[in-house]
Amino acid sequence: MKNFEFYNPVKVLFGTDQLKKLSANLSPYKRILMLYGGGSIKKNGVYKRVIEELSNFTVFEFSGIEANPRYETAIKAVELIKKENIEFVLAVGGGSVIDAAKFIAAATFYDGEDPWDILAKNKTVKKSLPIGCILTLPATGSEMNMGSVITRNSTNEKLSFLTPFSFPKFSILMPEFAASLPQRQVANGIVDTFVHVIEQYITYPADAPLQDRFAESILKTLIDEGPKVYENPADYNAMANLMWCSTMALNGTISPGVPSDWSVHTIGHELTALYEIDHARTLAIVLPGIWKALRNEKKEKLLQYAARVWNIYGGSDNEKIEKAIQKTVDFFESLGIETQLNKYQLGKESINIIVDRLENRGWKAFGDRQLVTLEIVRKALEYQL
Amino acid sequence: MKNFEFYNPVKVLFGTDQLKKLSANLSPYKRILMLYGGGSIKKNGVYKRVIEELSNFTVFEFSGIEANPRYETAIKAVELIKKENIEFVLAVGGGSVIDAAKFIAAATFYDGEDPWDILAKNKTVKKSLPIGCILTLPATGSEMNMGSVITRNSTNEKLSFLTPFSFPKFSILMPEFAASLPQRQVANGIVDTFVHVIEQYITYPADAPLQDRFAESILKTLIDEGPKVYENPADYNAMANLMWCSTMALNGTISPGVPSDWSVHTIGHELTALYEIDHARTLAIVLPGIWKALRNEKKEKLLQYAARVWNIYGGSDNEKIEKAIQKTVDFFESLGIETQLNKYQLGKESINIIVDRLENRGWKAFGDRQLVTLEIVRKALEYQL
Repeated sequence: MKNFEFYNPVKVLFGTDQLKKLSANLSPYKRILMLYGGGSIKKNGVYKRVIEELSNFTVFEFSGIEANPRYETAIKAVELIKKENIEFVLAVGGGSVIDAAKFIAAATFYDGEDPWDILAKNKTVKKSLPIGCILTLPATGSEMNMGSVITRNSTNEKLSFLTPFSFPKFSILMPEFAASLPQRQVANGIVDTFVHVIEQYITYPADAPLQDRFAESILKTLIDEGPKVYENPADYNAMANLMWCSTMALNGTISPGVPSDWSVHTIGHELTALYEIDHARTLAIVLPGIWKALRNEKKEKLLQYAARVWNIYGGSDNEKIEKAIQKTVDFFESLGIETQLNKYQLGKESINIIVDRLENRGWKAFGDRQLVTLEIVRKALEYQL
Repeated sequence: MKNFEFYNPVKVLFGTDQLKKLSANLSPYKRILMLYGGGSIKKNGVYKRVIEELSNFTVFEFSGIEANPRYETAIKAVELIKKENIEFVLAVGGGSVIDAAKFIAAATFYDGEDPWDILAKNKTVKKSLPIGCILTLPATGSEMNMGSVITRNSTNEKLSFLTPFSFPKFSILMPEFAASLPQRQVANGIVDTFVHVIEQYITYPADAPLQDRFAESILKTLIDEGPKVYENPADYNAMANLMWCSTMALNGTISPGVPSDWSVHTIGHELTALYEIDHARTLAIVLPGIWKALRNEKKEKLLQYAARVWNIYGGSDNEKIEKAIQKTVDFFESLGIETQLNKYQLGKESINIIVDRLENRGWKAFGDRQLVTLEIVRKALEYQL
């Protein structure tokens, strides 16, 4: 096992009727910015219920956070915060709104020239507004971690930053708030969660059997519960199980002491930034290609995955790995998520563009053991043509 | 899944060379109480290494914390803290020392008549000194939770308390510090961890598949890694895996949203308080008896345990459950831990004494669904005669 530090102070309030705890958890603050997206919370009643709980606070609203939250939009929220002396950012939505809240909270106190440098130049965040979350879409795990991904429209860049200041003070997880989600978003959430686990699991053996088994636990639960919640997002128990999987997949539980990869995300972000493909769908495209391109380098963990997650025992090592990849692809496609570039009207030229962008940014080798060179990126995406 | 709150702000520093981070993590404080047990840390060099890291602090020492930490001893440490205006309690040891630190820290600011009431009357802790841990024995999980168990010698009582104030600020987990443990203590740690998981797992189905799989993950890891670390506590990787299992078994990871039991602990505590049997050994005695006495009530989870943890599939339900109990007993006994009362020179009269004590305290039904009545306690212990 590798050395590690583990720290996660987020308070999670999970289940039915948790919203009544909102005002108590906001009690040190008075001036609250309620941040949300395109207005689905107005249709499903969440907006009204949150507003009712905030009757003793001065509430400002900022809506219109995009599915891939944009720097340009976030900066406008920062201006509102400064103008109105806002003390707390309450994100009501999915990972996009929460990620935006994290960036907005950090940018408010950024003392350099351009807050974009927090993302582009890894500038240290020294202070941040406190944030809290009311989750409406299980997927990113952002409700219980310190990561955030922001897109800059003007340059088509999608970049991330991490700081302990970004840990939400609390996150309210009410599965019923996700009951009216469109099937497409439920599917995205399942695949996003699945690939989050994979990025921390399919690397190389590190003598960390508990972390491996925890990762396999989430994958197996997603395989069992995913189809149920995809068929019926209003199935409370299935949604609760998906929601808890999403949170546990990226809150530090499975990552301590083991290597991680994240190359699928790195490549996927380019597909989203360039072609506006849903984040989870980009992961479903890239993952099988990366596994095919690195089947030897990741052989031991792929075989463990084949056996423990999919009960694949017969055949040669290569056959077992092929079967495990196919099972994974079938699982994604059973949720309506395509895994081939041509299904998204993309061909060879898109691969050249992506490789060039990574090269221009100087990202020539990444992922676990720096295995993902530009040649591997090309090879991986060519498998998915 | 049941509603839950999850909150655990303990910072864990795990692996080799973590001790160098001690002074930075103590930085807001100057006057430190170093709390430890019988002096094994002087023999194995841990004492010297900790003292070296504390050269910039004013260090007071309090040693002699017992294996079952005593109220009478703890109160003396409280006096020293008040006299010397100590600001921080640093526990160096296993769960006993950490539990003592939690009680000492809370008792220091207790404003009622007798700090024993924190345990005996569940008096609310309103303030506590901050504590930190350097773990030398994987077992109780106390390094990453808010629980503490204290024994009062004068009345042979062993009671527990919980408060968020008891979360350590940090816990340093260095597997090498456990490398010279006697085999008996390693065995105790494995069994203690195993039964912690069982108390949160063998109850009844609550549609919480991820929590179940996490619990099974810890059990399977203990079954694989336990014998290795029992044979050779200096096997760094095996000890690291045991240590992380112990911490994860009781830090909230497997318990959210599911019922728990804790009846094995409740009965075991009586055996320790009365006959000074090691805590883990009392659990190994009580657990098989409770399962036999409640095999119908806990049938669904026992069958799941049989299949998933021990790969038992053949035979009738009752046969499968019997096999799973026997496998568990064999596992404990392979670690040198006896599971029958007569192996501890106890007979029927001890059962009467225990049942009477529980009755006198008014504890007439406990455990999940209040299934453990005094009759069940008697029946369970009679199975173990």
